[in-house]
Amino acid sequence: MERVTIYDSTLRDGTQGEGVSFSIDDKLKIVQQLDQLGIRYIEAGNPGSNPKDMEFFQRASRLPLRHARLAAFGSTHKVGTPAQEDPSLASLLAAQTPVVAIFGKAWDLHVSEVLRTDNATNLAIIRETIAYCTAHGREVIFDAEHFFDGYKHNPDYAMEVLRTAADAGASVLTLCDTNGGAFPDEIGEITRAVSSAFPDRAIGIHCHNDAGMAVGNSMMAVFSGATMVQGTLNGFGERCGNANLCTLIPNLQLKRGYDCIPPENMPTLRQVSRLVYELANLLPDERKPYVGGMAFAHKGGMHIDAVHKNPATFEHIDPALVGNERRFLLSEMSGRSTLLAAIHKVDETVGRNAPETSRILKRLKTLESEGYQFEGAEGSFALLIRKELHRYTPFFKLEQFKVISIAPNYNEYSSSVMIKIKVDGKEEITAAEGDGPVNALDSALRKALVRFYPEIDDMRLIDFKVRVLDSKNATASKVRVLIESTDGEQNWSTVGVSTDILDASWHALVDSVEYLLHSRRDI
Amino acid sequence: MERVTIYDSTLRDGTQGEGVSFSIDDKLKIVQQLDQLGIRYIEAGNPGSNPKDMEFFQRASRLPLRHARLAAFGSTHKVGTPAQEDPSLASLLAAQTPVVAIFGKAWDLHVSEVLRTDNATNLAIIRETIAYCTAHGREVIFDAEHFFDGYKHNPDYAMEVLRTAADAGASVLTLCDTNGGAFPDEIGEITRAVSSAFPDRAIGIHCHNDAGMAVGNSMMAVFSGATMVQGTLNGFGERCGNANLCTLIPNLQLKRGYDCIPPENMPTLRQVSRLVYELANLLPDERKPYVGGMAFAHKGGMHIDAVHKNPATFEHIDPALVGNERRFLLSEMSGRSTLLAAIHKVDETVGRNAPETSRILKRLKTLESEGYQFEGAEGSFALLIRKELHRYTPFFKLEQFKVISIAPNYNEYSSSVMIKIKVDGKEEITAAEGDGPVNALDSALRKALVRFYPEIDDMRLIDFKVRVLDSKNATASKVRVLIESTDGEQNWSTVGVSTDILDASWHALVDSVEYLLHSRRDI
Repeated sequence: MERVTIYDSTLRDGTQGEGVSFSIDDKLKIVQQLDQLGIRYIEAGNPGSNPKDMEFFQRASRLPLRHARLAAFGSTHKVGTPAQEDPSLASLLAAQTPVVAIFGKAWDLHVSEVLRTDNATNLAIIRETIAYCTAHGREVIFDAEHFFDGYKHNPDYAMEVLRTAADAGASVLTLCDTNGGAFPDEIGEITRAVSSAFPDRAIGIHCHNDAGMAVGNSMMAVFSGATMVQGTLNGFGERCGNANLCTLIPNLQLKRGYDCIPPENMPTLRQVSRLVYELANLLPDERKPYVGGMAFAHKGGMHIDAVHKNPATFEHIDPALVGNERRFLLSEMSGRSTLLAAIHKVDETVGRNAPETSRILKRLKTLESEGYQFEGAEGSFALLIRKELHRYTPFFKLEQFKVISIAPNYNEYSSSVMIKIKVDGKEEITAAEGDGPVNALDSALRKALVRFYPEIDDMRLIDFKVRVLDSKNATASKVRVLIESTDGEQNWSTVGVSTDILDASWHALVDSVEYLLHSRRDI
Repeated sequence: MERVTIYDSTLRDGTQGEGVSFSIDDKLKIVQQLDQLGIRYIEAGNPGSNPKDMEFFQRASRLPLRHARLAAFGSTHKVGTPAQEDPSLASLLAAQTPVVAIFGKAWDLHVSEVLRTDNATNLAIIRETIAYCTAHGREVIFDAEHFFDGYKHNPDYAMEVLRTAADAGASVLTLCDTNGGAFPDEIGEITRAVSSAFPDRAIGIHCHNDAGMAVGNSMMAVFSGATMVQGTLNGFGERCGNANLCTLIPNLQLKRGYDCIPPENMPTLRQVSRLVYELANLLPDERKPYVGGMAFAHKGGMHIDAVHKNPATFEHIDPALVGNERRFLLSEMSGRSTLLAAIHKVDETVGRNAPETSRILKRLKTLESEGYQFEGAEGSFALLIRKELHRYTPFFKLEQFKVISIAPNYNEYSSSVMIKIKVDGKEEITAAEGDGPVNALDSALRKALVRFYPEIDDMRLIDFKVRVLDSKNATASKVRVLIESTDGEQNWSTVGVSTDILDASWHALVDSVEYLLHSRRDI
């Protein structure tokens, strides 16, 4: 199998994305994950421009890596400063990585407008920087910045830049579509010209997504001779992001037979993608190919029926290959097959055309039109079905809760809740404090119930999401609260919708408790 | 200029996307927007499978459209039922659109596994369905479902399907990559083969994004002879979505010179994209090419400096061409140029290396590490600068607020707030009710302040967003509240972060009021 070397820049170019930043500990965790995944090169920082990266590289050098070589990223030395006196270059070498990536200008517009020097000087600083780094024992990857734009404006000069870098000892010549504006036909043609001009050098490709084609362009470059692909996990990066390695790796390996990572690691791809979103503190983009939660989610009734007959009819790969799974969405469009599967988890005897099925479908549509969404709230949906099938037991009755929040507050907690509930005719009144009204309400509800239902102690909330549905109504907007709970063995998710965030949270909390009690007591 | 006809399916294929649904009124609004944008074909529903679409088409037929022809979508008639007796086909024609799109199977796997019939019968139902629709005066666009997969498995049969559709009177033969798994090289080659085999028919392309290449693949099809491009606004659609027309239209027209929409409409593209997100009740994907809020957002210091010298250095087009704008992000990475521009709005005399500038940068970094983000909260950032420059006036002092929420509640409002503030030594104590605690607090603050600052009455909140930052801590998670306010002339945005949603909202509300007062009183 032909090898395509994957070069990950999540920790360098990825952090140029809006809202993306990692602590040093996060970066170390991600390096280990990338190494375990089998990535060959990890570009992890820019020590010349970001002093925090220096500490990271010191700690990273102690990580035992199995597959990956660490790379530090930096620019050619300053015009007028010799390489050995350039402070940024000194920082780059001080990072002590086996590999350095040096970017240099390949578009003459940048030479005159940004560097404000002449074309010959630009070649000289490229030559000297690379020679200086190789003399210090580094593998040098040359990133030809704006290569495609440069080639389109002045092909001779762009090629001369590459020639200079190759002669100075760069092992890889990376063609960068820095502004992300190139098209797949151009990328193919230009990469072909470069790879035939440099048969003894590996050619890399580095694409941005400004025209929505970073992945397609990277693929065209590989088909035209590039053997190294640069990108970032989840496509993180400045503006519209970099080429997404979570898409490119399966595209290359599963669908076109290139060797990128050890095949046994492919099913961990989704998990690595989620971890990086989590550490970046960003919500996952569920629409992303292969690893997104919607990537194999079927909604149209005809599609769902076809997938039941043969998954290959509407899935381009088996989702398990990348650690993902197939989902059938609950919606007015999804048709009765999906609904029936959910109903059968509660009662297997209900038929496709039974009046109960129609009633549940109708209720589902009503709640959807009010802002409910059960696609990510299977726990609440199971309760809805139970209610319509009259297989629902109310485990308690709320008599009243009263929430008081005071500011400024001089206690640990700003909010307190008094709650009174009734279970089988027995009243319980209690109170709890919390960090904000929702947290206090959550604590009070559990405290009131645990006397009657000790299994409540096994359960905890592991996720809490708030979505403002009609933000134009400002603080009177409708919100949807999604809660995920676990008892250590299974997870379940529940939903509440209201113009009052306390009320929405209350409904999701109550569903969460009732789902647990129903499943434990099998009522 | 060569014409590429744009065929929008936001209201049909787009609604197969998870979380995407439109009311009939929303659909009518979107049809008008698409027509104003200059889209030629609008596929707006599937009347055979969704009865709600019938009412929509009745109302849509009364809309005066300038550019667009409406299309209804449906399948070939059922095996064993003649065309004139097929109820879905009857619904399709009852929609009374000038155009119908008929999809038929082009992959023999689907003929045997899904339709469960033989190849000849499939050709017969395609022929009869199209002939029946043209006989009823419709323009018929034939969507060859799974065409690329079909062609790869059995090219002769896939071409026979197209031949049958063309002979039966279809005006356009659309090649669909229904599973979204094809690559740009294959799409180019196969489209070229089709367009040379059918020189007298328009060839359409319909791509899905399951391999992250819907846009790149559509472009390759156009370069290979396709003259109609199907897609959806914002790339809405099942699984990973359809080809995104908000990317394709500028790609084709601004960068490759094709004629897609009247050039004077291009600057409305971003606005149309936002409207569709809003009506779908989805958060905009700010990373989307051309129209996303991050598409022209620069974060790296070197990039920002270069863009100041010449925007073409890091922007592939002028953002104004699509109604977007350039942004310089405030972050530890963005360097001093961006920061200084914001500081100069408050005080022009502060220098780049002044101690105040360093102090503000340090404060910015501290707040960012606590979860603040000023990229979308310029109002709060301006106040932060004022505070550090000692040009901040506290307009009031909070003595105390007390929020009480009760459930079940028998009044219109669940929450009430008592608030006591002090302005210039004068106390004001008052109370307000609201729909939930945040809304009540918002009302109470304004009510207390308006006696001292009547301009508060000019101001209203127009947007309210809540983001849970560390959802693993469940109801004790840190939340970030973003508020947008307006006084009718200018808008401003403010932020608050806390583990207590009331506290976070309070900070954003106070900043919102203080920003207004500072800008009105120019203190």
